[in-house]
Amino acid sequence: MKGMLSAEKEIEVRFSEVDMMGVVWHGAYAVYLEDAREAFGAKYGLSYSRYIDEYVFAPIVDLQVQYKRPLRYGMKALVRIAWRPSDAAKIVFDYEIVSPEDGTLFCKATSVQVFMDRDYNLLWDSPAFYVAWKKQMGVL
Amino acid sequence: MKGMLSAEKEIEVRFSEVDMMGVVWHGAYAVYLEDAREAFGAKYGLSYSRYIDEYVFAPIVDLQVQYKRPLRYGMKALVRIAWRPSDAAKIVFDYEIVSPEDGTLFCKATSVQVFMDRDYNLLWDSPAFYVAWKKQMGVL
Amino acid sequence: MKGMLSAEKEIEVRFSEVDMMGVVWHGAYAVYLEDAREAFGAKYGLSYSRYIDEYVFAPIVDLQVQYKRPLRYGMKALVRIAWRPSDAAKIVFDYEIVSPEDGTLFCKATSVQVFMDRDYNLLWDSPAFYVAWKKQMGVL
Amino acid sequence: MKGMLSAEKEIEVRFSEVDMMGVVWHGAYAVYLEDAREAFGAKYGLSYSRYIDEYVFAPIVDLQVQYKRPLRYGMKALVRIAWRPSDAAKIVFDYEIVSPEDGTLFCKATSVQVFMDRDYNLLWDSPAFYVAWKKQMGVL
Repeated sequence: MKGMLSAEKEIEVRFSEVDMMGVVWHGAYAVYLEDAREAFGAKYGLSYSRYIDEYVFAPIVDLQVQYKRPLRYGMKALVRIAWRPSDAAKIVFDYEIVSPEDGTLFCKATSVQVFMDRDYNLLWDSPAFYVAWKKQMGVL
Repeated sequence: MKGMLSAEKEIEVRFSEVDMMGVVWHGAYAVYLEDAREAFGAKYGLSYSRYIDEYVFAPIVDLQVQYKRPLRYGMKALVRIAWRPSDAAKIVFDYEIVSPEDGTLFCKATSVQVFMDRDYNLLWDSPAFYVAWKKQMGVL
Repeated sequence: MKGMLSAEKEIEVRFSEVDMMGVVWHGAYAVYLEDAREAFGAKYGLSYSRYIDEYVFAPIVDLQVQYKRPLRYGMKALVRIAWRPSDAAKIVFDYEIVSPEDGTLFCKATSVQVFMDRDYNLLWDSPAFYVAWKKQMGVL
Repeated sequence: MKGMLSAEKEIEVRFSEVDMMGVVWHGAYAVYLEDAREAFGAKYGLSYSRYIDEYVFAPIVDLQVQYKRPLRYGMKALVRIAWRPSDAAKIVFDYEIVSPEDGTLFCKATSVQVFMDRDYNLLWDSPAFYVAWKKQMGVL
Protein backbone atom coordinates (compact mmCIF):
# COMPACT_ATOMS: atom_id res chain seq x y z
CA MET A 1 0.00 0.00 0.00
CA LYS A 2 1.45 3.36 -0.94
CA GLY A 3 0.71 6.16 1.37
CA MET A 4 2.45 9.17 2.73
CA LEU A 5 2.09 7.86 6.25
CA SER A 6 1.63 4.22 7.05
CA ALA A 7 2.24 1.64 9.73
CA GLU A 8 1.71 -2.02 10.34
CA LYS A 9 0.86 -4.29 13.22
CA GLU A 10 1.19 -8.05 13.45
CA ILE A 11 -1.82 -9.72 14.99
CA GLU A 12 -2.30 -13.29 16.16
CA VAL A 13 -5.72 -14.85 15.81
CA ARG A 14 -7.16 -15.58 19.24
CA PHE A 15 -9.20 -18.74 19.86
CA SER A 16 -12.09 -16.59 21.08
CA GLU A 17 -12.18 -14.73 17.76
CA VAL A 18 -12.88 -17.85 15.72
CA ASP A 19 -16.51 -18.75 15.14
CA MET A 20 -18.52 -21.90 14.78
CA MET A 21 -17.51 -22.17 11.11
CA GLY A 22 -13.83 -22.31 12.01
CA VAL A 23 -12.96 -18.84 10.72
CA VAL A 24 -12.47 -15.51 12.45
CA TRP A 25 -15.90 -13.97 12.99
CA HIS A 26 -16.32 -10.95 10.71
CA GLY A 27 -17.10 -8.71 13.68
CA ALA A 28 -13.74 -9.46 15.30
CA TYR A 29 -11.85 -7.67 12.52
CA ALA A 30 -12.79 -4.32 14.07
CA VAL A 31 -10.31 -5.15 16.82
CA TYR A 32 -7.53 -5.80 14.28
CA LEU A 33 -8.21 -2.49 12.55
CA GLU A 34 -8.16 -0.70 15.89
CA ASP A 35 -4.83 -2.35 16.73
CA ALA A 36 -3.51 -0.90 13.47
CA ARG A 37 -4.79 2.60 14.32
CA GLU A 38 -3.05 2.35 17.66
CA ALA A 39 0.18 1.26 15.96
CA PHE A 40 -0.14 4.25 13.61
CA GLY A 41 -0.73 6.55 16.55
CA ALA A 42 2.26 5.19 18.43
CA LYS A 43 4.48 5.57 15.36
CA TYR A 44 3.48 9.12 14.51
CA GLY A 45 2.69 10.58 17.92
CA LEU A 46 -1.05 10.60 17.42
CA SER A 47 -2.29 7.96 19.82
CA TYR A 48 -5.75 7.79 21.41
CA SER A 49 -4.22 9.29 24.55
CA ARG A 50 -3.43 12.44 22.63
CA TYR A 51 -7.10 12.92 21.76
CA ILE A 52 -8.09 12.27 25.36
CA ASP A 53 -5.63 14.88 26.58
CA GLU A 54 -7.07 17.39 24.12
CA TYR A 55 -10.66 16.65 25.18
CA VAL A 56 -11.50 15.58 21.67
CA PHE A 57 -13.20 12.41 20.47
CA ALA A 58 -12.50 10.96 17.05
CA PRO A 59 -15.28 8.42 16.68
CA ILE A 60 -15.59 6.19 13.65
CA VAL A 61 -18.47 7.44 11.49
CA ASP A 62 -17.96 5.19 8.49
CA LEU A 63 -16.45 1.73 8.22
CA GLN A 64 -16.25 -0.39 5.09
CA VAL A 65 -14.77 -3.86 5.25
CA GLN A 66 -14.23 -6.36 2.46
CA TYR A 67 -13.55 -9.88 3.60
CA LYS A 68 -11.48 -11.54 0.87
CA ARG A 69 -10.19 -14.73 2.47
CA PRO A 70 -10.87 -16.17 5.89
CA LEU A 71 -8.45 -15.95 8.79
CA ARG A 72 -8.21 -19.10 10.86
CA TYR A 73 -6.98 -20.11 14.29
CA GLY A 74 -3.22 -20.36 14.50
CA MET A 75 -2.62 -17.74 11.81
CA LYS A 76 -0.65 -14.57 12.24
CA ALA A 77 -1.47 -11.68 9.96
CA LEU A 78 -0.09 -8.26 9.20
CA VAL A 79 -2.46 -5.31 9.34
CA ARG A 80 -1.24 -2.45 7.17
CA ILE A 81 -2.71 0.99 7.68
CA ALA A 82 -2.21 4.02 5.46
CA TRP A 83 -3.35 7.58 6.19
CA ARG A 84 -5.35 9.06 3.31
CA PRO A 85 -5.00 12.85 2.89
CA SER A 86 -8.18 14.84 3.35
CA ASP A 87 -8.91 18.55 3.50
CA ALA A 88 -12.08 18.12 5.52
CA ALA A 89 -12.06 17.79 9.30
CA LYS A 90 -11.87 14.01 9.21
CA ILE A 91 -9.33 11.21 9.42
CA VAL A 92 -9.41 8.56 6.72
CA PHE A 93 -7.44 5.32 6.95
CA ASP A 94 -7.14 2.49 4.45
CA TYR A 95 -6.20 -0.98 5.66
CA GLU A 96 -5.06 -4.28 4.28
CA ILE A 97 -4.74 -7.46 6.27
CA VAL A 98 -2.20 -9.72 4.61
CA SER A 99 -0.18 -12.84 5.26
CA PRO A 100 3.29 -11.90 6.51
CA GLU A 101 4.70 -14.85 4.58
CA ASP A 102 3.38 -14.43 1.06
CA GLY A 103 1.32 -11.27 1.07
CA THR A 104 -1.99 -13.09 0.51
CA LEU A 105 -4.77 -10.55 0.98
CA PHE A 106 -7.31 -11.42 3.67
CA CYS A 107 -9.17 -8.16 4.08
CA LYS A 108 -9.38 -4.57 2.88
CA ALA A 109 -11.02 -1.78 4.80
CA THR A 110 -11.49 1.95 5.06
CA SER A 111 -12.47 3.94 8.12
CA VAL A 112 -13.51 7.55 8.50
CA GLN A 113 -13.32 9.43 11.78
CA VAL A 114 -14.54 12.92 12.54
CA PHE A 115 -13.79 15.16 15.47
CA MET A 116 -16.20 15.79 18.30
CA ASP A 117 -15.95 17.66 21.55
CA ARG A 118 -16.71 16.12 24.93
CA ASP A 119 -20.42 16.69 24.52
CA TYR A 120 -20.37 14.78 21.24
CA ASN A 121 -20.86 17.89 19.12
CA LEU A 122 -19.30 17.68 15.68
CA LEU A 123 -16.28 19.92 15.18
CA TRP A 124 -16.43 21.47 11.73
CA ASP A 125 -12.74 22.30 11.69
CA SER A 126 -9.86 20.05 12.55
CA PRO A 127 -8.62 20.67 16.10
CA ALA A 128 -5.46 22.74 16.39
CA PHE A 129 -3.37 19.80 17.60
CA TYR A 130 -4.33 17.78 14.52
CA VAL A 131 -3.46 20.60 12.12
CA ALA A 132 -0.14 20.99 13.92
CA TRP A 133 0.44 17.26 13.63
CA LYS A 134 -0.23 17.35 9.87
CA LYS A 135 2.28 20.16 9.47
CA GLN A 136 4.81 18.30 11.56
CA MET A 137 4.35 15.21 9.37
CA GLY A 138 4.76 17.27 6.24
CA VAL A 139 1.33 16.38 4.89
CA LEU A 140 -0.29 19.76 5.16
CA MET B 1 -37.29 1.17 5.02
CA LYS B 2 -39.32 -0.28 2.19
CA GLY B 3 -38.42 -3.72 1.13
CA MET B 4 -40.16 -6.77 -0.13
CA LEU B 5 -38.98 -8.72 2.88
CA SER B 6 -38.04 -7.10 6.13
CA ALA B 7 -37.88 -7.71 9.84
CA GLU B 8 -36.90 -5.92 12.99
CA LYS B 9 -35.32 -6.72 16.32
CA GLU B 10 -35.24 -4.66 19.46
CA ILE B 11 -31.86 -4.57 21.11
CA GLU B 12 -30.82 -3.30 24.54
CA VAL B 13 -27.41 -1.76 24.92
CA ARG B 14 -25.28 -3.89 27.23
CA PHE B 15 -22.87 -2.27 29.70
CA SER B 16 -20.02 -4.27 28.17
CA GLU B 17 -20.73 -2.77 24.74
CA VAL B 18 -20.14 0.80 25.88
CA ASP B 19 -16.62 2.14 25.56
CA MET B 20 -14.41 4.53 27.49
CA MET B 21 -16.07 7.49 25.73
CA GLY B 22 -19.49 6.53 27.05
CA VAL B 23 -20.91 5.35 23.73
CA VAL B 24 -21.37 1.92 22.20
CA TRP B 25 -18.05 0.90 20.66
CA HIS B 26 -18.37 0.90 16.87
CA GLY B 27 -17.26 -2.73 16.67
CA ALA B 28 -20.16 -3.87 18.85
CA TYR B 29 -22.70 -2.94 16.18
CA ALA B 30 -21.80 -6.11 14.24
CA VAL B 31 -23.63 -8.01 16.98
CA TYR B 32 -26.76 -5.88 16.53
CA LEU B 33 -26.74 -6.45 12.78
CA GLU B 34 -26.33 -10.18 13.33
CA ASP B 35 -29.27 -10.15 15.75
CA ALA B 36 -31.31 -8.58 12.95
CA ARG B 37 -30.22 -11.26 10.44
CA GLU B 38 -31.28 -13.90 12.92
CA ALA B 39 -34.65 -12.21 13.39
CA PHE B 40 -35.06 -12.12 9.60
CA GLY B 41 -34.15 -15.79 9.38
CA ALA B 42 -36.57 -16.72 12.14
CA LYS B 43 -39.37 -14.74 10.47
CA TYR B 44 -38.90 -16.13 6.97
CA GLY B 45 -37.62 -19.64 7.66
CA LEU B 46 -34.04 -18.89 6.64
CA SER B 47 -32.14 -19.07 9.90
CA TYR B 48 -28.45 -19.88 10.29
CA SER B 49 -29.47 -23.42 11.24
CA ARG B 50 -30.90 -23.89 7.78
CA TYR B 51 -27.54 -23.15 6.21
CA ILE B 52 -25.83 -25.48 8.64
CA ASP B 53 -28.24 -28.29 7.76
CA GLU B 54 -27.55 -27.72 4.07
CA TYR B 55 -23.77 -27.78 4.60
CA VAL B 56 -23.50 -24.30 3.23
CA PHE B 57 -21.75 -21.28 4.71
CA ALA B 58 -22.96 -17.77 3.98
CA PRO B 59 -20.08 -15.67 5.24
CA ILE B 60 -20.14 -11.88 5.18
CA VAL B 61 -17.85 -10.67 2.37
CA ASP B 62 -18.72 -6.99 2.50
CA LEU B 63 -19.90 -4.81 5.36
CA GLN B 64 -20.50 -1.08 5.26
CA VAL B 65 -21.58 0.77 8.37
CA GLN B 66 -22.40 4.43 8.81
CA TYR B 67 -22.53 5.60 12.40
CA LYS B 68 -24.91 8.58 12.50
CA ARG B 69 -25.56 9.13 16.19
CA PRO B 70 -24.11 7.36 19.20
CA LEU B 71 -25.95 4.71 21.17
CA ARG B 72 -25.50 4.97 24.92
CA TYR B 73 -25.96 2.75 27.95
CA GLY B 74 -29.58 2.39 28.97
CA MET B 75 -30.91 2.86 25.45
CA LYS B 76 -33.05 0.41 23.57
CA ALA B 77 -32.97 0.54 19.80
CA LEU B 78 -34.76 -1.07 16.91
CA VAL B 79 -32.70 -2.74 14.22
CA ARG B 80 -34.57 -2.88 10.92
CA ILE B 81 -33.37 -5.23 8.22
CA ALA B 82 -34.55 -5.38 4.62
CA TRP B 83 -33.63 -7.99 2.04
CA ARG B 84 -32.38 -6.44 -1.19
CA PRO B 85 -33.15 -8.41 -4.37
CA SER B 86 -30.14 -9.67 -6.28
CA ASP B 87 -29.74 -11.97 -9.26
CA ALA B 88 -26.25 -13.02 -8.34
CA ALA B 89 -25.50 -15.80 -5.86
CA LYS B 90 -25.36 -13.48 -2.90
CA ILE B 91 -27.53 -12.18 -0.07
CA VAL B 92 -27.72 -8.43 0.43
CA PHE B 93 -29.27 -6.82 3.50
CA ASP B 94 -29.79 -3.17 4.32
CA TYR B 95 -30.14 -2.11 7.95
CA GLU B 96 -31.22 0.87 9.96
CA ILE B 97 -30.86 1.20 13.70
CA VAL B 98 -33.45 3.65 14.98
CA SER B 99 -34.98 4.84 18.20
CA PRO B 100 -38.23 2.95 18.86
CA GLU B 101 -39.70 6.13 20.34
CA ASP B 102 -39.13 8.79 17.70
CA GLY B 103 -37.40 7.04 14.81
CA THR B 104 -34.10 8.90 15.30
CA LEU B 105 -31.52 7.26 13.04
CA PHE B 106 -28.47 5.90 14.81
CA CYS B 107 -26.87 3.77 12.14
CA LYS B 108 -27.23 2.55 8.55
CA ALA B 109 -25.52 -0.48 7.16
CA THR B 110 -25.37 -2.91 4.27
CA SER B 111 -24.01 -6.45 4.32
CA VAL B 112 -23.27 -8.84 1.50
CA GLN B 113 -23.02 -12.59 1.97
CA VAL B 114 -22.01 -15.19 -0.58
CA PHE B 115 -22.40 -18.93 -0.48
CA MET B 116 -19.57 -21.31 0.21
CA ASP B 117 -19.37 -25.04 0.68
CA ARG B 118 -17.85 -26.69 3.73
CA ASP B 119 -14.35 -26.38 2.33
CA TYR B 120 -14.86 -22.65 1.92
CA ASN B 121 -15.05 -22.81 -1.86
CA LEU B 122 -17.22 -20.11 -3.41
CA LEU B 123 -20.48 -21.37 -4.89
CA TRP B 124 -21.11 -19.57 -8.18
CA ASP B 125 -24.80 -20.38 -8.15
CA SER B 126 -27.26 -19.96 -5.34
CA PRO B 127 -27.85 -23.25 -3.51
CA ALA B 128 -31.08 -25.03 -4.38
CA PHE B 129 -32.63 -24.40 -0.98
CA TYR B 130 -32.07 -20.65 -1.35
CA VAL B 131 -33.64 -20.54 -4.82
CA ALA B 132 -36.59 -22.51 -3.45
CA TRP B 133 -36.86 -20.07 -0.57
CA LYS B 134 -36.92 -17.09 -2.95
CA LYS B 135 -39.73 -18.71 -4.95
CA GLN B 136 -41.62 -19.47 -1.77
CA MET B 137 -41.29 -15.83 -0.70
CA GLY B 138 -42.49 -14.63 -4.08
CA VAL B 139 -39.32 -12.71 -4.80
CA LEU B 140 -37.99 -14.81 -7.62
CA MET C 1 -32.51 -21.01 44.02
CA LYS C 2 -33.89 -19.67 47.23
CA GLY C 3 -33.06 -16.12 48.02
CA MET C 4 -34.70 -13.17 49.60
CA LEU C 5 -34.33 -11.18 46.42
CA SER C 6 -34.00 -12.77 43.03
CA ALA C 7 -34.65 -12.16 39.37
CA GLU C 8 -34.25 -13.90 36.07
CA LYS C 9 -33.44 -13.03 32.49
CA GLU C 10 -33.91 -15.11 29.39
CA ILE C 11 -30.95 -15.01 27.06
CA GLU C 12 -30.57 -16.24 23.49
CA VAL C 13 -27.22 -17.59 22.41
CA ARG C 14 -25.75 -15.37 19.72
CA PHE C 15 -23.83 -16.87 16.79
CA SER C 16 -20.82 -14.72 17.71
CA GLU C 17 -20.73 -16.23 21.21
CA VAL C 18 -20.20 -19.78 19.94
CA ASP C 19 -16.61 -20.91 19.52
CA MET C 20 -14.72 -23.18 17.17
CA MET C 21 -15.81 -26.22 19.21
CA GLY C 22 -19.48 -25.47 18.64
CA VAL C 23 -20.25 -24.36 22.17
CA VAL C 24 -20.57 -20.94 23.80
CA TRP C 25 -17.07 -19.72 24.62
CA HIS C 26 -16.60 -19.73 28.40
CA GLY C 27 -15.66 -16.05 28.38
CA ALA C 28 -19.01 -15.08 26.86
CA TYR C 29 -20.88 -16.13 29.99
CA ALA C 30 -19.78 -12.90 31.72
CA VAL C 31 -22.23 -11.12 29.43
CA TYR C 32 -25.08 -13.42 30.50
CA LEU C 33 -24.32 -12.83 34.18
CA GLU C 34 -24.25 -9.09 33.57
CA ASP C 35 -27.62 -9.28 31.82
CA ALA C 36 -28.93 -10.95 34.97
CA ARG C 37 -27.48 -8.22 37.21
CA GLU C 38 -29.19 -5.63 35.02
CA ALA C 39 -32.49 -7.51 35.25
CA PHE C 40 -32.09 -7.61 39.06
CA GLY C 41 -31.34 -3.89 39.08
CA ALA C 42 -34.35 -3.11 36.92
CA LYS C 43 -36.61 -5.23 39.13
CA TYR C 44 -35.49 -3.79 42.45
CA GLY C 45 -34.58 -0.23 41.55
CA LEU C 46 -30.86 -0.79 41.78
CA SER C 47 -29.68 -0.50 38.20
CA TYR C 48 -26.20 0.53 37.04
CA SER C 49 -27.61 3.99 36.35
CA ARG C 50 -28.30 4.40 40.06
CA TYR C 51 -24.65 3.84 40.87
CA ILE C 52 -23.62 6.28 38.16
CA ASP C 53 -25.94 8.93 39.56
CA GLU C 54 -24.46 8.43 43.01
CA TYR C 55 -20.89 8.69 41.69
CA VAL C 56 -20.14 5.22 42.96
CA PHE C 57 -18.58 2.29 41.14
CA ALA C 58 -19.43 -1.27 42.07
CA PRO C 59 -16.76 -3.22 40.23
CA ILE C 60 -16.60 -7.00 40.27
CA VAL C 61 -13.69 -8.06 42.53
CA ASP C 62 -14.35 -11.79 42.56
CA LEU C 63 -16.00 -14.05 40.00
CA GLN C 64 -16.35 -17.80 40.20
CA VAL C 65 -17.97 -19.72 37.37
CA GLN C 66 -18.65 -23.42 37.08
CA TYR C 67 -19.46 -24.62 33.59
CA LYS C 68 -21.64 -27.71 33.98
CA ARG C 69 -23.02 -28.34 30.49
CA PRO C 70 -22.32 -26.50 27.26
CA LEU C 71 -24.67 -23.97 25.74
CA ARG C 72 -25.00 -24.22 21.96
CA TYR C 73 -26.20 -22.04 19.12
CA GLY C 74 -29.97 -21.89 18.86
CA MET C 75 -30.52 -22.41 22.59
CA LYS C 76 -32.34 -20.07 24.88
CA ALA C 77 -31.48 -20.17 28.55
CA LEU C 78 -32.71 -18.66 31.77
CA VAL C 79 -30.24 -16.85 33.98
CA ARG C 80 -31.38 -16.80 37.59
CA ILE C 81 -29.77 -14.38 40.00
CA ALA C 82 -30.18 -14.29 43.77
CA TRP C 83 -28.89 -11.61 46.13
CA ARG C 84 -26.91 -13.08 49.01
CA PRO C 85 -27.09 -11.13 52.29
CA SER C 86 -23.83 -9.69 53.53
CA ASP C 87 -22.96 -7.33 56.38
CA ALA C 88 -19.78 -6.12 54.75
CA ALA C 89 -19.74 -3.32 52.20
CA LYS C 90 -20.09 -5.66 49.27
CA ILE C 91 -22.73 -7.08 46.96
CA VAL C 92 -22.81 -10.84 46.48
CA PHE C 93 -24.88 -12.54 43.80
CA ASP C 94 -25.34 -16.22 43.06
CA TYR C 95 -26.39 -17.31 39.58
CA GLU C 96 -27.70 -20.36 37.82
CA ILE C 97 -28.11 -20.69 34.08
CA VAL C 98 -30.76 -23.28 33.33
CA SER C 99 -32.87 -24.56 30.49
CA PRO C 100 -36.29 -22.86 30.55
CA GLU C 101 -37.84 -26.12 29.40
CA ASP C 102 -36.59 -28.74 31.83
CA GLY C 103 -34.40 -26.89 34.31
CA THR C 104 -31.18 -28.57 33.15
CA LEU C 105 -28.30 -26.77 34.83
CA PHE C 106 -25.74 -25.26 32.46
CA CYS C 107 -23.74 -23.04 34.76
CA LYS C 108 -23.41 -21.82 38.35
CA ALA C 109 -21.63 -18.69 39.38
CA THR C 110 -21.01 -16.23 42.18
CA SER C 111 -19.89 -12.64 41.89
CA VAL C 112 -18.70 -10.19 44.51
CA GLN C 113 -18.76 -6.44 44.01
CA VAL C 114 -17.40 -3.77 46.31
CA PHE C 115 -18.00 -0.05 46.35
CA MET C 116 -15.51 2.47 45.08
CA ASP C 117 -15.61 6.21 44.60
CA ARG C 118 -14.86 7.92 41.32
CA ASP C 119 -11.12 7.79 41.94
CA TYR C 120 -11.34 4.04 42.42
CA ASN C 121 -10.75 4.22 46.18
CA LEU C 122 -12.39 1.41 48.14
CA LEU C 123 -15.34 2.50 50.26
CA TRP C 124 -15.18 0.69 53.59
CA ASP C 125 -18.83 1.29 54.33
CA SER C 126 -21.79 0.74 52.08
CA PRO C 127 -22.93 3.99 50.44
CA ALA C 128 -26.00 5.59 51.96
CA PHE C 129 -28.19 4.85 48.95
CA TYR C 130 -27.37 1.14 49.18
CA VAL C 131 -28.16 0.97 52.89
CA ALA C 132 -31.43 2.77 52.19
CA TRP C 133 -32.17 0.29 49.42
CA LYS C 134 -31.58 -2.66 51.73
CA LYS C 135 -33.97 -1.19 54.29
CA GLN C 136 -36.54 -0.56 51.57
CA MET C 137 -36.24 -4.18 50.42
CA GLY C 138 -36.63 -5.41 53.99
CA VAL C 139 -33.27 -7.14 54.01
CA LEU C 140 -31.48 -4.97 56.52
CA MET D 1 4.78 -17.69 41.00
CA LYS D 2 6.71 -20.89 41.54
CA GLY D 3 5.62 -23.81 39.50
CA MET D 4 7.19 -26.73 37.81
CA LEU D 5 5.99 -25.48 34.46
CA SER D 6 5.17 -21.87 33.80
CA ALA D 7 5.06 -19.29 31.07
CA GLU D 8 4.21 -15.67 30.62
CA LYS D 9 2.66 -13.45 27.99
CA GLU D 10 2.73 -9.69 27.74
CA ILE D 11 -0.61 -8.19 26.85
CA GLU D 12 -1.53 -4.67 25.82
CA VAL D 13 -4.88 -3.29 26.89
CA ARG D 14 -7.03 -2.65 23.84
CA PHE D 15 -9.34 0.38 23.69
CA SER D 16 -12.29 -1.94 23.08
CA GLU D 17 -11.59 -3.78 26.34
CA VAL D 18 -12.02 -0.69 28.49
CA ASP D 19 -15.48 0.00 29.81
CA MET D 20 -17.55 3.06 30.60
CA MET D 21 -15.83 3.40 33.98
CA GLY D 22 -12.41 3.73 32.35
CA VAL D 23 -11.11 0.32 33.39
CA VAL D 24 -10.81 -2.99 31.59
CA TRP D 25 -14.20 -4.72 31.77
CA HIS D 26 -13.96 -7.75 34.05
CA GLY D 27 -15.21 -10.04 31.31
CA ALA D 28 -12.32 -9.12 29.03
CA TYR D 29 -9.80 -10.79 31.34
CA ALA D 30 -10.85 -14.20 30.00
CA VAL D 31 -9.05 -13.24 26.79
CA TYR D 32 -5.84 -12.43 28.71
CA LEU D 33 -5.95 -15.76 30.53
CA GLU D 34 -6.49 -17.56 27.23
CA ASP D 35 -3.51 -15.73 25.73
CA ALA D 36 -1.47 -17.09 28.64
CA ARG D 37 -2.72 -20.67 28.06
CA GLU D 38 -1.72 -20.33 24.42
CA ALA D 39 1.74 -19.07 25.41
CA PHE D 40 2.08 -22.04 27.77
CA GLY D 41 1.00 -24.39 24.99
CA ALA D 42 3.45 -22.87 22.55
CA LYS D 43 6.29 -23.11 25.07
CA TYR D 44 5.69 -26.72 26.08
CA GLY D 45 4.29 -28.24 22.91
CA LEU D 46 0.75 -28.44 24.20
CA SER D 47 -1.12 -25.90 22.12
CA TYR D 48 -4.84 -25.93 21.30
CA SER D 49 -3.93 -27.35 17.90
CA ARG D 50 -2.57 -30.44 19.60
CA TYR D 51 -5.94 -31.11 21.20
CA ILE D 52 -7.70 -30.54 17.90
CA ASP D 53 -5.40 -33.03 16.16
CA GLU D 54 -6.14 -35.58 18.87
CA TYR D 55 -9.92 -35.04 18.56
CA VAL D 56 -10.07 -34.01 22.20
CA PHE D 57 -11.67 -30.93 23.72
CA ALA D 58 -10.34 -29.45 26.91
CA PRO D 59 -13.11 -27.07 27.88
CA ILE D 60 -12.91 -24.84 30.93
CA VAL D 61 -15.21 -26.23 33.63
CA ASP D 62 -14.20 -23.95 36.48
CA LEU D 63 -12.87 -20.40 36.45
CA GLN D 64 -12.14 -18.25 39.47
CA VAL D 65 -10.91 -14.70 39.03
CA GLN D 66 -9.95 -12.16 41.67
CA TYR D 67 -9.70 -8.62 40.42
CA LYS D 68 -7.22 -6.83 42.67
CA ARG D 69 -6.46 -3.57 40.87
CA PRO D 70 -7.92 -2.20 37.67
CA LEU D 71 -6.16 -2.31 34.33
CA ARG D 72 -6.51 0.84 32.28
CA TYR D 73 -6.08 1.90 28.68
CA GLY D 74 -2.46 2.34 27.69
CA MET D 75 -1.19 -0.21 30.17
CA LYS D 76 0.82 -3.28 29.32
CA ALA D 77 0.66 -6.20 31.70
CA LEU D 78 2.34 -9.54 32.16
CA VAL D 79 0.16 -12.61 32.48
CA ARG D 80 1.96 -15.39 34.33
CA ILE D 81 0.61 -18.91 34.12
CA ALA D 82 1.72 -21.89 36.17
CA TRP D 83 0.66 -25.51 35.68
CA ARG D 84 -0.60 -27.08 38.89
CA PRO D 85 0.03 -30.83 39.23
CA SER D 86 -3.06 -32.99 39.43
CA ASP D 87 -3.59 -36.74 39.42
CA ALA D 88 -7.12 -36.52 38.08
CA ALA D 89 -7.91 -36.19 34.38
CA LYS D 90 -7.92 -32.43 34.46
CA ILE D 91 -5.64 -29.48 33.73
CA VAL D 92 -5.30 -26.82 36.40
CA PHE D 93 -3.62 -23.48 35.79
CA ASP D 94 -2.95 -20.61 38.20
CA TYR D 95 -2.49 -17.12 36.82
CA GLU D 96 -1.26 -13.75 37.97
CA ILE D 97 -1.53 -10.57 35.97
CA VAL D 98 1.17 -8.17 37.09
CA SER D 99 2.83 -4.95 36.05
CA PRO D 100 6.01 -5.69 34.10
CA GLU D 101 7.63 -2.67 35.70
CA ASP D 102 7.10 -3.13 39.42
CA GLY D 103 5.24 -6.40 39.82
CA THR D 104 2.04 -4.76 41.07
CA LEU D 105 -0.64 -7.45 41.18
CA PHE D 106 -3.72 -6.74 39.08
CA CYS D 107 -5.44 -10.10 39.04
CA LYS D 108 -5.19 -13.69 40.24
CA ALA D 109 -7.05 -16.57 38.70
CA THR D 110 -7.35 -20.33 38.50
CA SER D 111 -8.85 -22.38 35.70
CA VAL D 112 -9.74 -26.05 35.52
CA GLN D 113 -10.13 -27.93 32.26
CA VAL D 114 -11.28 -31.48 31.75
CA PHE D 115 -11.03 -33.69 28.71
CA MET D 116 -13.94 -34.47 26.45
CA ASP D 117 -14.27 -36.33 23.19
CA ARG D 118 -15.79 -34.87 20.06
CA ASP D 119 -19.31 -35.64 21.23
CA TYR D 120 -18.66 -33.73 24.43
CA ASN D 121 -18.53 -36.85 26.58
CA LEU D 122 -16.30 -36.53 29.64
CA LEU D 123 -13.13 -38.59 29.49
CA TRP D 124 -12.49 -40.13 32.87
CA ASP D 125 -8.83 -40.75 32.15
CA SER D 126 -6.32 -38.35 30.73
CA PRO D 127 -5.81 -38.92 27.01
CA ALA D 128 -2.65 -40.82 26.05
CA PHE D 129 -1.04 -37.78 24.46
CA TYR D 130 -1.45 -35.78 27.67
CA VAL D 131 0.04 -38.53 29.83
CA ALA D 132 2.95 -38.76 27.36
CA TRP D 133 3.37 -35.00 27.55
CA LYS D 134 3.51 -35.11 31.36
CA LYS D 135 6.19 -37.79 31.23
CA GLN D 136 8.13 -35.79 28.68
CA MET D 137 7.95 -32.71 30.91
CA GLY D 138 9.15 -34.71 33.89
CA VAL D 139 6.03 -34.00 35.91
CA LEU D 140 4.56 -37.49 36.01
